[in-house]
Amino acid sequence: MESPILFSEEYPIFTPISLTADGVLVLDQRLLPDEELWLGIPDVDAMTDAITTMIVRGAPTIGVAAAFGMVQCVRTFVPAQLTAPPDEPFWTVWQSALDQLNASRPTAVNLAWALAEMDTCAKTNAHRAWSEFVLAIETFAQNLHKNELLACLAIGKHGAHCIPEGATILTHCNAGALATAGYGTALGVIRAAYANDPSITVIASETRPRLQGAKLTAWELAGAGIPVTVASDNMIAHLMQQGQIDVVVTGADRIAANGDSANKIGTYSHALAAAAHNVPFYIAAPMSTVDLTLNTGAEIPIEERDNEEVWNIYGGKLPGNVNYVNPAFDVTPARLIEGIITQHGIARPKTEAHPFAQWSQTSIDANLTGASA
Amino acid sequence: MESPILFSEEYPIFTPISLTADGVLVLDQRLLPDEELWLGIPDVDAMTDAITTMIVRGAPTIGVAAAFGMVQCVRTFVPAQLTAPPDEPFWTVWQSALDQLNASRPTAVNLAWALAEMDTCAKTNAHRAWSEFVLAIETFAQNLHKNELLACLAIGKHGAHCIPEGATILTHCNAGALATAGYGTALGVIRAAYANDPSITVIASETRPRLQGAKLTAWELAGAGIPVTVASDNMIAHLMQQGQIDVVVTGADRIAANGDSANKIGTYSHALAAAAHNVPFYIAAPMSTVDLTLNTGAEIPIEERDNEEVWNIYGGKLPGNVNYVNPAFDVTPARLIEGIITQHGIARPKTEAHPFAQWSQTSIDANLTGASA
Repeated sequence: MESPILFSEEYPIFTPISLTADGVLVLDQRLLPDEELWLGIPDVDAMTDAITTMIVRGAPTIGVAAAFGMVQCVRTFVPAQLTAPPDEPFWTVWQSALDQLNASRPTAVNLAWALAEMDTCAKTNAHRAWSEFVLAIETFAQNLHKNELLACLAIGKHGAHCIPEGATILTHCNAGALATAGYGTALGVIRAAYANDPSITVIASETRPRLQGAKLTAWELAGAGIPVTVASDNMIAHLMQQGQIDVVVTGADRIAANGDSANKIGTYSHALAAAAHNVPFYIAAPMSTVDLTLNTGAEIPIEERDNEEVWNIYGGKLPGNVNYVNPAFDVTPARLIEGIITQHGIARPKTEAHPFAQWSQTSIDANLTGASA
Repeated sequence: MESPILFSEEYPIFTPISLTADGVLVLDQRLLPDEELWLGIPDVDAMTDAITTMIVRGAPTIGVAAAFGMVQCVRTFVPAQLTAPPDEPFWTVWQSALDQLNASRPTAVNLAWALAEMDTCAKTNAHRAWSEFVLAIETFAQNLHKNELLACLAIGKHGAHCIPEGATILTHCNAGALATAGYGTALGVIRAAYANDPSITVIASETRPRLQGAKLTAWELAGAGIPVTVASDNMIAHLMQQGQIDVVVTGADRIAANGDSANKIGTYSHALAAAAHNVPFYIAAPMSTVDLTLNTGAEIPIEERDNEEVWNIYGGKLPGNVNYVNPAFDVTPARLIEGIITQHGIARPKTEAHPFAQWSQTSIDANLTGASA
């Protein structure tokens, strides 16, 4: 089931997005697990559409998609001269592509960052002959993708030490290769742990309302040959009471300076159950997810999404006077978090008031991005 | 939306099952909320089918359905003489009907109990002329239904005092009129509270995997004009963290002597979240749900149901190597339960090691039955 699309020979790692000789190949995540459809993205318009319609999803994957969209902007432009630097007509097209992609998904923080990086690269190489300019843009975008991957690999390496031998690991939503353009954060930890110890197993909570755990994480782990069992979100506390879960690892979307972590709705519920049963609860996320401008999680805004995501499985006719809510994220307080696994090592929010202080001067590395899905 | 089928003029209360002049009228609960279809049940075969296929569901409703099935057994029998007592051919048909209905749903404890009650009534009246015998059977079955209702009304009366003014009440699954043949246990408390204080509102957790909260409880409360909001089960801890839930009331399927309570999967998760946010958590159930032969909830067996209930919303194609679990119930420990609201008053498991000791000699009244759905 796992796709043959791998990052490189050096890093033979599954990725849902790949720069090819003349275009971009993306996995249509909307169709998983029913169908594994790969689409060729030829130009900026098609990439904008792929991001807007959630063919590609997950903040780091969206960032890489935007960078690759800019590569296609360059590749599809027909220059007046191959031996001259990019000219004024090109820069008009370039700026228009930046603006269009930037507006494709306003909430994904990595999108704007990746586009800004691409723009800086283009300006830095503006003096080069067209063919050298194209190569510089392609190489930069490939490296941006590679850096995402390296952050995940480092997170996996650090995180594998948190997984007891033969553990059953709970994860929630999809903080995997699909979301991070390869390997994954929480699933990176699981992949690294499994490479050391093939006796581990995973429980994926289904993650209502959009079911990313059941649809994406189960697909991704099964494809990697890692044993996975899906449970409804509301079964997890019972499974912990029965001693069937040894450790929890999830991704995060935004982390405050004290370690309070926003992640997909339902994460907090799992963290409370974990605390009640002395099951260690970890977050796996790159340092770019940490927002040091926020003192605590109370400052993290919680997105309320269209409630159709909740009721669309209930059947056709609904009582008109029933209301629905759909908060997309929740905040797990630092005191419930055993560790936050970053590419630099493990921060300890439970015991340290400023768990990132050791890294904050040097390590919020703009090249190492990637929040969870 | 609420049906015009009411219990009686004395108790103008919605019921999903009703004995009519020549048959039984039942609401097809499988189709809710999409369609409100009432079916006439003419005979024992049709009633057996209605129970087996879950047209009627909820232990007390099933008990009433079985009793009404036995009424139809009598009504559809053509006696040799109207002025003589029931004869041998009748008793053969009667026993066959008892056996058939008893096998229709093996796990519902109220089913066997209601059939035994009907059999005792028949034997007690075996000496009467046929027309008097029929009347005795009809009256007994109607009273059995009425007693279910009276237990719920008493639970509602006691429970209403547990609901703060203007409270937002969380309930899980459906412990309502649909499950208890009228009024409800947890929803009985909510109905009684709403009658006193129309400023209360309800949050119904959707109750994966079968969605009884979203499909049945929301329908039932909306029909009664009580404001109701549906949330995914995994949103509840977040809503409590935001201060949006003031009290929790659920039903129970089986309660141990120490107060440990088995209820629909997901209840325990809500109880843990409630404890973490100092939100009082109540169980509403008749004393017949209390099983004094069990010292603690660890002795309550947890039914594992067909995992198709979990994955049937995920789409057509599933990875063959993904596993699924589907525990149908979980056990909430006594220490998390502020009170168990019975028809006799409120037991206090949190503070009393034997919370039912005050009632155990006198009050496990076989006429007052009814577990939650």
